[in-house]
Amino acid sequence: MMNKNILIKSASNFISFVMIIAFFVFSVFVPFNQVFPQIVSNYYNSLGWIVNLIFIFDLALKLILLANKKNNLGLFSEESLADYLKTYFIFDLLSIFPIALFPTNSLWQFVPLIKIFSVFNRISFIRQIILKFAPFAVVVQFLYWFIQITHWIACGWIKIDGINEQHSISSNYITALYWTTTTLTTVGYGDIVPHSNFEKLYSVVVMIIGVGLYGYLIGNVVSVITKRDPTHEHFISNLENLSSLVRYRNLPKSLTARVKQYFLYIWKNRLEHNESSFLQKLPDGLKLEVITFLKQDFIEKVNLFKDAGNEFISDLAENLRETVITPDEFVFHEGDFGEKVYFVIEGQLSVLTKNSNKEIAKIKKGDFFGEIALFKNRPRNASVKAITFCHLYYLDKNSFDLLIPKYPLISKKIEEKVLEREKQD
Amino acid sequence: MMNKNILIKSASNFISFVMIIAFFVFSVFVPFNQVFPQIVSNYYNSLGWIVNLIFIFDLALKLILLANKKNNLGLFSEESLADYLKTYFIFDLLSIFPIALFPTNSLWQFVPLIKIFSVFNRISFIRQIILKFAPFAVVVQFLYWFIQITHWIACGWIKIDGINEQHSISSNYITALYWTTTTLTTVGYGDIVPHSNFEKLYSVVVMIIGVGLYGYLIGNVVSVITKRDPTHEHFISNLENLSSLVRYRNLPKSLTARVKQYFLYIWKNRLEHNESSFLQKLPDGLKLEVITFLKQDFIEKVNLFKDAGNEFISDLAENLRETVITPDEFVFHEGDFGEKVYFVIEGQLSVLTKNSNKEIAKIKKGDFFGEIALFKNRPRNASVKAITFCHLYYLDKNSFDLLIPKYPLISKKIEEKVLEREKQD
Amino acid sequence: MMNKNILIKSASNFISFVMIIAFFVFSVFVPFNQVFPQIVSNYYNSLGWIVNLIFIFDLALKLILLANKKNNLGLFSEESLADYLKTYFIFDLLSIFPIALFPTNSLWQFVPLIKIFSVFNRISFIRQIILKFAPFAVVVQFLYWFIQITHWIACGWIKIDGINEQHSISSNYITALYWTTTTLTTVGYGDIVPHSNFEKLYSVVVMIIGVGLYGYLIGNVVSVITKRDPTHEHFISNLENLSSLVRYRNLPKSLTARVKQYFLYIWKNRLEHNESSFLQKLPDGLKLEVITFLKQDFIEKVNLFKDAGNEFISDLAENLRETVITPDEFVFHEGDFGEKVYFVIEGQLSVLTKNSNKEIAKIKKGDFFGEIALFKNRPRNASVKAITFCHLYYLDKNSFDLLIPKYPLISKKIEEKVLEREKQD
Amino acid sequence: MMNKNILIKSASNFISFVMIIAFFVFSVFVPFNQVFPQIVSNYYNSLGWIVNLIFIFDLALKLILLANKKNNLGLFSEESLADYLKTYFIFDLLSIFPIALFPTNSLWQFVPLIKIFSVFNRISFIRQIILKFAPFAVVVQFLYWFIQITHWIACGWIKIDGINEQHSISSNYITALYWTTTTLTTVGYGDIVPHSNFEKLYSVVVMIIGVGLYGYLIGNVVSVITKRDPTHEHFISNLENLSSLVRYRNLPKSLTARVKQYFLYIWKNRLEHNESSFLQKLPDGLKLEVITFLKQDFIEKVNLFKDAGNEFISDLAENLRETVITPDEFVFHEGDFGEKVYFVIEGQLSVLTKNSNKEIAKIKKGDFFGEIALFKNRPRNASVKAITFCHLYYLDKNSFDLLIPKYPLISKKIEEKVLEREKQD
Repeated sequence: MMNKNILIKSASNFISFVMIIAFFVFSVFVPFNQVFPQIVSNYYNSLGWIVNLIFIFDLALKLILLANKKNNLGLFSEESLADYLKTYFIFDLLSIFPIALFPTNSLWQFVPLIKIFSVFNRISFIRQIILKFAPFAVVVQFLYWFIQITHWIACGWIKIDGINEQHSISSNYITALYWTTTTLTTVGYGDIVPHSNFEKLYSVVVMIIGVGLYGYLIGNVVSVITKRDPTHEHFISNLENLSSLVRYRNLPKSLTARVKQYFLYIWKNRLEHNESSFLQKLPDGLKLEVITFLKQDFIEKVNLFKDAGNEFISDLAENLRETVITPDEFVFHEGDFGEKVYFVIEGQLSVLTKNSNKEIAKIKKGDFFGEIALFKNRPRNASVKAITFCHLYYLDKNSFDLLIPKYPLISKKIEEKVLEREKQD
Repeated sequence: MMNKNILIKSASNFISFVMIIAFFVFSVFVPFNQVFPQIVSNYYNSLGWIVNLIFIFDLALKLILLANKKNNLGLFSEESLADYLKTYFIFDLLSIFPIALFPTNSLWQFVPLIKIFSVFNRISFIRQIILKFAPFAVVVQFLYWFIQITHWIACGWIKIDGINEQHSISSNYITALYWTTTTLTTVGYGDIVPHSNFEKLYSVVVMIIGVGLYGYLIGNVVSVITKRDPTHEHFISNLENLSSLVRYRNLPKSLTARVKQYFLYIWKNRLEHNESSFLQKLPDGLKLEVITFLKQDFIEKVNLFKDAGNEFISDLAENLRETVITPDEFVFHEGDFGEKVYFVIEGQLSVLTKNSNKEIAKIKKGDFFGEIALFKNRPRNASVKAITFCHLYYLDKNSFDLLIPKYPLISKKIEEKVLEREKQD
Repeated sequence: MMNKNILIKSASNFISFVMIIAFFVFSVFVPFNQVFPQIVSNYYNSLGWIVNLIFIFDLALKLILLANKKNNLGLFSEESLADYLKTYFIFDLLSIFPIALFPTNSLWQFVPLIKIFSVFNRISFIRQIILKFAPFAVVVQFLYWFIQITHWIACGWIKIDGINEQHSISSNYITALYWTTTTLTTVGYGDIVPHSNFEKLYSVVVMIIGVGLYGYLIGNVVSVITKRDPTHEHFISNLENLSSLVRYRNLPKSLTARVKQYFLYIWKNRLEHNESSFLQKLPDGLKLEVITFLKQDFIEKVNLFKDAGNEFISDLAENLRETVITPDEFVFHEGDFGEKVYFVIEGQLSVLTKNSNKEIAKIKKGDFFGEIALFKNRPRNASVKAITFCHLYYLDKNSFDLLIPKYPLISKKIEEKVLEREKQD
Repeated sequence: MMNKNILIKSASNFISFVMIIAFFVFSVFVPFNQVFPQIVSNYYNSLGWIVNLIFIFDLALKLILLANKKNNLGLFSEESLADYLKTYFIFDLLSIFPIALFPTNSLWQFVPLIKIFSVFNRISFIRQIILKFAPFAVVVQFLYWFIQITHWIACGWIKIDGINEQHSISSNYITALYWTTTTLTTVGYGDIVPHSNFEKLYSVVVMIIGVGLYGYLIGNVVSVITKRDPTHEHFISNLENLSSLVRYRNLPKSLTARVKQYFLYIWKNRLEHNESSFLQKLPDGLKLEVITFLKQDFIEKVNLFKDAGNEFISDLAENLRETVITPDEFVFHEGDFGEKVYFVIEGQLSVLTKNSNKEIAKIKKGDFFGEIALFKNRPRNASVKAITFCHLYYLDKNSFDLLIPKYPLISKKIEEKVLEREKQD
């Protein structure tokens, strides 16, 4: 059943995509045809028919789906056929109005532009589908409306101002496009200006509506382009905060450098925790699945959990927390009270005795440490210091105590390790 | 008493509405009359009288209400008649200045424009009244000031620049309007420019004040229009977050699709929890009433509560939480510890045994499940998985324990169900 | 000592104010003198001397204060005389450069404009002093820079473009001002354009720097003006939230009206709680004083506390919370468990029995109720419902238990009231 | 090893800096050479070679570093040589394309501009390096792109419009620059306008892309400049909040003045707590080091801790909280219950008896007080009031109880002090 649904979904997406392009071509042709009927009329009717066929096909599909109520995908789930026939059906019907039946310069030609309502809804669907390129999709979407708005205003200007017969058609169009752009961007050179009252009124409307809308669109595109990497923005803002510590509190250079490198490492490896607020929005089951996926490859790197079942992993994933330790930073000192056990995903650490500051052991990728805290309530019996950048996961006593009764095998493994290490001392 | 209050309130709203329109017409006529006295003077005096009568009626009503102190609706509640007479009364008095007593082109004509203060206050009231169309009302409100500002500046320009006798009055006005728009939108074609020093100073003032204000108004209208659907914005921002998970963490396609459908379902059914922060602002009693209303139809769908009293419903409503489960998602697994009982508002679920993964029962709209958790502190004895999108309400043990002593009947019903289900096992 | 400090402070503020005005006049005269030396030179030297004397006086005062270290007001507290002499002293010295010694069109005339640094600091002080008109002060401050920037650019243009001898000086100046405004607001009519290379470069610089700065200033002034009433903004945003409840959840009209009136009452009486986040920023002692002041008049309205000492009031003030109850809303129902005692600041309530819904008593301004909850852990023995809008303060059991051992007199009064009421039952 | 790393890092930063400048010069020369080949060609080839040598050197260094994998600094840490050769290497190779082999006006000259990718990455590194001047660096960075964009568009205009032979080359360039600026800032005087279709299309593209980008850049620079002091912004916003208290709640003048002075003191001494949210982002070890540094000099001022070890200081630093007390404000009153011990960093306080309000002792910089609260659970036995502004640190009982078992020496010192003070009573 799932497969059939996905098939219908894919087909529906493809049709949406075709419709969006078809509408664009059509929306460009209609006003162009009004102002220069001599040029495009040959292709115009055929084009109109093709576009209409696409929309007819879509309408038919929609009606079939609604009638069968087989579609469980949430797309039209809240609509019933009866509701649809009473409300949006009329627009969809008007949008397939056969323009070929009327002369090319008649105003009837504009009726099928009611297709814009269908297209408006579908264009945001496209954005949902190509999730991987969402920011890029936003820009394309804005361009889609940009070009159409500019084109329509330019054609409107030619219609009102009349065609200058001494110049070629392309010259006429470029001049109109040029006037439109100077007006919408508020540059307003003033070499082409309205003369008649009607032209002036047209300019007034274009200036008020167009300028606002255009400014909004340009502002958005620019902001999307420049902010397309939020993790980088985040990194920069961290640096700015650090910078103010340096200026006002004279943080020493070596410490500053280490903090900077920490942020750099976090950023380059995309380890920021901004996912957690997003995950909170999901229902419990779905959240667990996503978290499990995100932490799966890390869990697999830890020897202890290599042959643990899926169930354990999903239980664990929910309780694990992430941290990054910079080189030469202590994870904990001998004598500290602590209740966390650490798992090493990446990097190398050394175990030191407090007095001699002597390295008594090395901890590598895949190892875990600090596990005594989970069984015995006593201070750390050694210090642990990072040699390289370390990417650690940790589990605190509370979470551990909840987990362990359910998984005696894992618990046993850890206890063995504890005994083994105690012997070494 | 309430009815009388509502009547007064409605009357007051209607008068506000009439005053706003009257002021608009008046504000358009006054400067127009100054620059083209030959056209409008015939209608002008009658118009002035009508507008004045409206404002006199309003002033009288206000005085009566304040004198009687019968108005308990919070509108003028903080004012006493004495306060009013000392402060705003003078403006309201000036605003009904009889313009007809003075020649139409005299500057005395401007005095009644002090009405703007009353109108300014009332216009935001209109916005409060038509709550259902609040975003639309904002646009209308902005247009109201847009048109007046543009019109006044245009009339000012004609007054200063003089009327071009060779052109018709409408031509003159359109040209002035056109100049105003090119200036306010900063397009500035430059085909119409100030020549005298006075004209130049007028342009300077228009540019500095007008450009800033106009930019602000246009920016606001555009932003209101484009952001008129905050739930959609919310949906888009969720998708963008999902998109970054896909890009940076390679979330698999099937999981991505499910998360996407969850957000889509939430959005289409308007189930987002952004209401809770709003409800926090209300006093306890009012909050309870609103919550009860919002959850009422859901409570009625649950068989268990069908004949429960209003009091129980309002008690319950405060403690119920909402969740949505996507198809194939587990609500809980056999063996989980859990303290929530679930009520099914919408959708279908199946009860599975862990080992055989066999469906042993179906749960439908109106049922409840997980109730054993409320009585016995033991792990779930079966898994529950959603078949379709499910809209659930749940109650945790703490809330339940607070409620139940007060409603023995409901408690008994639940216990019966528990016994019945235990027998089935 | 405090008095002397306040005197010094006031004097210092007054001098700041004079300096700001003096600098403005001076900053307007200097470039004007450069372009039209024939006009202002007569007054110019005297003006320069006056302005200089003001700044010399200020410098002297500052040096005396620093030398005596008597100033404890935090103004110059972090500076020592030695530090000052090493750093800012040179600027302050340059700023009193005697311009009269040099020809009026010499570039030496610009040296004293270094005064701008002193003025820049002082202008934000002015804003601190006139706290009551802070938003207005921001606008004045922006205007202060607006006018100067525009004036300087206009004078620069005249200097470069040369004076048109056929026109009067005022014509010349207005034209330059007009060019400056069209450029800075980006209107750019193009009737006055640069011709020489130098003029073009001047325009380029004005456009890049000026346009950005001007846009920023205008944007800020507009936003300050339109946002000068944050409580109104808050009210509007509440209404917008309500509006979306009405649209999406069909909240019934009567309930909507009551919620609306609640927000209206809250706003009109400025009872919003946005002060609390501000108060959190103050140290404990100061916070207590401010809270005590804010709640003082309310406490005085409650009969119970009328003759309580200041100490009790300040203790109480910290623990009181505010609430507003709308007409017909229940504060609590008979049978509810509750631990709050309420004090009536404003409004009227009625006590109802649950069964008969009969009013058995009225509660008025200055009364308190619900006090049994403080002594006996049992459900409310009656319902309380608001008749009018009620402004209540409440105290919960925990806070009460902390307070009462310290004030046996108050405690006794309450207990007497409890006994008296129990008898009535 | 650290030293070698720092050396490599410094060298790498220096090379980045040289590359950025080299690219700028090069990027200015290339289009200039295309439009005025007769001027720059003599220097052009030598320049090209120099720039190329710099980039070759950088490429070589990068390859060596990647091959040796000695670089542990996080810069290229995530890349392997093989990855690099497969991906970015081709761009870096193209960027050192020897332009001297082709005629100066050939389009091949543009190939090395692919260097922009390297430069784009490095420019944000520069921003990281000069942390102390981060806001200034942002402005420089924006200017870097400003100037290049403007220059390129101006050169493009000359290329399309042709050189006016009657004017000098500098005239031609200035005119183009002037046209570019009028267009990009949307001033659009209209004295220089496109005539041919190609020119018009060029203008359209410049207007759409350039205007958006330019507006964004200008807006950012202005906002960076005006917001370069966030602590001042914070201070102003505090004053605005205070101002609304004064307006709506009539806060008395003396209290207002004290609150104002508190904020002033906090701001001038940069004691705001906005560092804490930043510190939360650091891993435990690093956070501790930063906190320890920030509080070190304060700890050293307290006599009690003067000879405490580093370990104690870092333990303490994590638990200390800061507060500022204004003159005449009480830290606590006799009879209050309190669990905080205070350390005086700055300022003077007096100990008062409640009844006589008589000063019985003075507390000075370096002292501590309130320590009895740590040992005996009883109310304060005296009041403490600030004489001057006091900068205090405090420790609450919980933190103290955690610390003290580990440092018996400090504990003993405090107990001695307690005994000594009790004797005095």
